[in-house]
Amino acid sequence: MMTTLAEARAQDRADSLRGFRSRFILPRGVIYLDGNSLGPPPASAGARMATAVGSEWGHGLVRSWNDADWIGAPARVGAKIAGLIGAAPHEVIVADSTSVNLFKLLVAGIANRPGRSAILTVTGDFPTDLYLARDAASVLPGVDVRAVPEGRIEAELDQSVAVLLLGHVHYKTAARRDMAAITDKAHAVGALTLWDLSHSAGAVDVDLRGSGADLAVGCGYKFLNGGPGAPAWLFVAERLQAALRSPLSGWMGHAAPFEFLDAYEPAPGVARFLCGTPPMLSLLALETAIDLWLEVDGPDVWSKAARLWDLFSQRMAIRCEGHGFELITPAHADSRGSHIAFRHPRAFAIIQSLIARGVVGDFRDPDILRFGLTPLYLRYQDVWRAVETLYEIMQSGSWREAPPRVVGAVT
Amino acid sequence: MMTTLAEARAQDRADSLRGFRSRFILPRGVIYLDGNSLGPPPASAGARMATAVGSEWGHGLVRSWNDADWIGAPARVGAKIAGLIGAAPHEVIVADSTSVNLFKLLVAGIANRPGRSAILTVTGDFPTDLYLARDAASVLPGVDVRAVPEGRIEAELDQSVAVLLLGHVHYKTAARRDMAAITDKAHAVGALTLWDLSHSAGAVDVDLRGSGADLAVGCGYKFLNGGPGAPAWLFVAERLQAALRSPLSGWMGHAAPFEFLDAYEPAPGVARFLCGTPPMLSLLALETAIDLWLEVDGPDVWSKAARLWDLFSQRMAIRCEGHGFELITPAHADSRGSHIAFRHPRAFAIIQSLIARGVVGDFRDPDILRFGLTPLYLRYQDVWRAVETLYEIMQSGSWREAPPRVVGAVT
Repeated sequence: MMTTLAEARAQDRADSLRGFRSRFILPRGVIYLDGNSLGPPPASAGARMATAVGSEWGHGLVRSWNDADWIGAPARVGAKIAGLIGAAPHEVIVADSTSVNLFKLLVAGIANRPGRSAILTVTGDFPTDLYLARDAASVLPGVDVRAVPEGRIEAELDQSVAVLLLGHVHYKTAARRDMAAITDKAHAVGALTLWDLSHSAGAVDVDLRGSGADLAVGCGYKFLNGGPGAPAWLFVAERLQAALRSPLSGWMGHAAPFEFLDAYEPAPGVARFLCGTPPMLSLLALETAIDLWLEVDGPDVWSKAARLWDLFSQRMAIRCEGHGFELITPAHADSRGSHIAFRHPRAFAIIQSLIARGVVGDFRDPDILRFGLTPLYLRYQDVWRAVETLYEIMQSGSWREAPPRVVGAVT
Repeated sequence: MMTTLAEARAQDRADSLRGFRSRFILPRGVIYLDGNSLGPPPASAGARMATAVGSEWGHGLVRSWNDADWIGAPARVGAKIAGLIGAAPHEVIVADSTSVNLFKLLVAGIANRPGRSAILTVTGDFPTDLYLARDAASVLPGVDVRAVPEGRIEAELDQSVAVLLLGHVHYKTAARRDMAAITDKAHAVGALTLWDLSHSAGAVDVDLRGSGADLAVGCGYKFLNGGPGAPAWLFVAERLQAALRSPLSGWMGHAAPFEFLDAYEPAPGVARFLCGTPPMLSLLALETAIDLWLEVDGPDVWSKAARLWDLFSQRMAIRCEGHGFELITPAHADSRGSHIAFRHPRAFAIIQSLIARGVVGDFRDPDILRFGLTPLYLRYQDVWRAVETLYEIMQSGSWREAPPRVVGAVT
């Protein structure tokens, strides 16, 4: 346990990841604790975009689909992401948004489990997952969404379930589910699992193969630092790839996209889950971020994330006790992701006040403060200072001066 | 009719659009006739990406969703595109890919026409449209795709048709359909029209409102110059917006996306057809291109496009007669788009040979040469020289030296 800022600084000097901070663009004077919402740009992203625009798009023009291997980018970047989530390279592809990928994999997965009538999922998780589950069920006769409270998942997991859809790490609380144990239970009743890894890829050690997971989707712009609205990605376990078909059979998922045939033949492997032409600039920005991840030793990241979390939690207990914060993230490192969340009745005003002082966390309805702890660019001293700033705000009551909430603004 | 290169150059000097060529990045020594596949970058795109990465993403971080109005970008850019296609600003939104947008609008449109059993479309058009029509039909009990040859469309248009799905300009032949006349016929039997504008937006004068069109989709990266895989867009006529619901109800299409509610309530207006988080870098690159279009006087573009086409056609007749080229684009300006296409049994080798000499057109299976005629950056002298180069290749027989076709390469 660190008890002084000097000790936190000493930890920073000894940190095996300390060299990565300079690999990101970070504004001066800001402690950025919102990498769980939008990671900062890799320092190389600007130059990569300049090359992509000037040289590949500008000089190469349409020839860059071949010469710059734009056409291979979804599989190439997918294969790189695979290494971060315990998948084989040919099990992951970059495509569309997380929402669209959820639809594709839900419909494909349910079709692979004929005679079953339910998508089982949980209430209160990231709502898009539930929306898309309802969308998938609505286009599949006889299929319903069974959305149950957290504690009821195992009881409701029976042989009527085609797909069990769950987030791996909860977007508000950071509670992490035991992927291997839950997958085993799903398989015991013949259900497929579909994991949303948006808040766990790049945040915690994910082992899709080791867990026996069937399907997964994830987001490129949070812990992976791929840029605003970066393309999403999806995982289909090798054993399922030949049997599953995308319900959105766009031309990029065709076995021979440039033959322009009226008959659809899905590409072999996970590439059949491509749909339209991918947004290449955003995809190449994502690749710069994933390339940076490939330089990192995973265990170093996961262990530092846990220690940043412990430091935040300890400093909060010491400095902000009695100010009404309720920790809602599980305390055990294996049961949580890489953000820390608190309830406070004045959460919105407090977050605004923190942001005004250069500590960027975020607010989630109705009363949650959320702080992302991202080891590649955060230092122990940043965590220390963030809690000190929060302490000062609470002690002085200056949070009362925060501007009112703007309806419609992104929070 | 221009009869000398000097006359073509004189036309260039008198061209009201001549100032726009320098607003694009174009490689030296290349005559680019593939803007129908991938338009070149606006000269401002590089600087826009630098700002988007360094300042908005890097300095502003997550705050840029508000401060840089990323959150408003899909509607803002959609409103700008609206001006190019005869739509009202609030009838167009940028979202997803053309493929995904086809699925959304087909399913939504069919649901709006209960009791009808068919998507009517044509064989031999851009195949993704047909694939997605089949996908939409497959999730709607009792709905089938009726794909008929060109000449059978009117005969098959009856009261069983829910949606008539057609490309406006054909991707191979450049044949243009009469949007107003066909829409009238569809409405006479109570069907909705869904137009794919991928090869007509930015190529010809499109008047969605004037034609009474119901629904449309389009691509950002062809004639609009929005960048490789630029986000696509969609149009829903105002009168239909309240009644139609997207089958892909991602969080960005929610009326209150940041309340994270388990219940889905679609946003008012066309924004309900948003789905996941948009790829912002690609979207902002698209915006630089659309901003450039906003400076242009539409009629100047459409009339120059027609004249470039006439010049190409005339020069081909004069220089390449007897070399086996068959013009497959309609001769009348109102019946075609802004590319010109020929059949030739050795089309692939001829295109490769042209590209090797700096004249970039493209090949489409099995025997089509396609040349995009894009008035913002092409000159009359470019068209002249392109045909001269083709003449030299044919006259010398040097096309026989072209490299063989690479299986799997983008053509």
